[in-house]
Amino acid sequence: MTAMTATYELFYWPGIPGRGEFPRLVLEAAGADYVDVARRPESEGGGIPALVALLEDTGQTPGFAVPMLRHGELVISQSANLCRYLGERHGLAPEDEAGRLHAMQLQLTVNDLADEAHDTHHPIASALYYEEQQDAARDRAAHFREARMPKYLGYFERVLEQNGGAHLVGDAVSYVDLSVFQVMRGLAYAFPERFATVSRETPGLLELADRVEALPKIAAYLASERRLDFNEMGVFRRYPELDGA
Amino acid sequence: MTAMTATYELFYWPGIPGRGEFPRLVLEAAGADYVDVARRPESEGGGIPALVALLEDTGQTPGFAVPMLRHGELVISQSANLCRYLGERHGLAPEDEAGRLHAMQLQLTVNDLADEAHDTHHPIASALYYEEQQDAARDRAAHFREARMPKYLGYFERVLEQNGGAHLVGDAVSYVDLSVFQVMRGLAYAFPERFATVSRETPGLLELADRVEALPKIAAYLASERRLDFNEMGVFRRYPELDGA
Repeated sequence: MTAMTATYELFYWPGIPGRGEFPRLVLEAAGADYVDVARRPESEGGGIPALVALLEDTGQTPGFAVPMLRHGELVISQSANLCRYLGERHGLAPEDEAGRLHAMQLQLTVNDLADEAHDTHHPIASALYYEEQQDAARDRAAHFREARMPKYLGYFERVLEQNGGAHLVGDAVSYVDLSVFQVMRGLAYAFPERFATVSRETPGLLELADRVEALPKIAAYLASERRLDFNEMGVFRRYPELDGA
Repeated sequence: MTAMTATYELFYWPGIPGRGEFPRLVLEAAGADYVDVARRPESEGGGIPALVALLEDTGQTPGFAVPMLRHGELVISQSANLCRYLGERHGLAPEDEAGRLHAMQLQLTVNDLADEAHDTHHPIASALYYEEQQDAARDRAAHFREARMPKYLGYFERVLEQNGGAHLVGDAVSYVDLSVFQVMRGLAYAFPERFATVSRETPGLLELADRVEALPKIAAYLASERRLDFNEMGVFRRYPELDGA
């Protein structure tokens, strides 16, 4: 590989935080030089056509979906893969092999949680509108609220406690802490009533999310226009009929 | 880390191939010395109590779910994480960083496909029986058959072609080839009619799966009692009402 001092180019849907927010938070926390390609105007090579062109590119191993990252000659996809790559390059991952394996394990579990949160509003097909699958969504959301959300948050709370309470893995901020921050904020957005109840049992995670939010680079990012608000096009959507204490 | 010559211990549900089969295939292809812990009798420390004990262990970063791998002092979870760890240690992964990142990218996409195949029979909740979510299952399975299965298989066919046709990544058998073999066999089991139609468009993948099946260590494994048949408890289940050409 060459050009490893090149600017990072992140490729993701321009209107939602979604799965692109996980690597974006790593880039921001690292203070890395990056371009959020699809948020540039189409006239400057941005917009959705830039995503389509990259997905159709035949230069090397293609990606199935965005987020994707281009870094010099390297082009990779899968958000957890991007987070690990960026985190390990920028001091946002443990240095030792066991720590790195545990970080990836936790990141993949964050992914699973995000997938399940997504499927509460799209239990039948991503290609259909929410309104076309609302009955199944009510059923899936009820199980998610009652069983899955407490199970996942309880798990991460336990991981945090066993690691000493300051970080989920290792002895410094990692991409996992950043991603869990995002999931905590996403769940609070999508399921405000249920999250208020469940998170009372996970005070360590609430504090962790606040600490991440207060990191100078993250605080500056969150106050900037680069941060995208949660909305009803993304992974975490607020549909009051899917919530409940 | 120490004891890196220790026997591998794989922890997974004893009655299904499921997500445990992905790392199990890597262990088998590597000819590695391993114990399939939960398939041993409870009287010898096996069975489901061994899984429960490991999931409740507080020694280091806990796992959210099996499959898990213990190797000396190291304990890790998430099947893709296990595959990468084992593949990179046993010559079943590319040697270069870009190849390793692409292998993980592909493995995570195999994971996504397996998750979606699972959710065709469990679109509402894993904790409910299939029979309790059969209407939603019909709808989700229809979308999976029509849109998702061809999209995923078409993607992997394209990846294979762009890599020269012999392997999905790198220039030798990797854990990704093993996992795609498993997914091809799983889809053929669960959706025989639809798979027959779709896989006509992916001749390279059909040949790849046959080549993997013929690898001496894999062939010996498949003929052994260690290989678990697909069944209606696992990820890939044959429910004729969910299939269709």
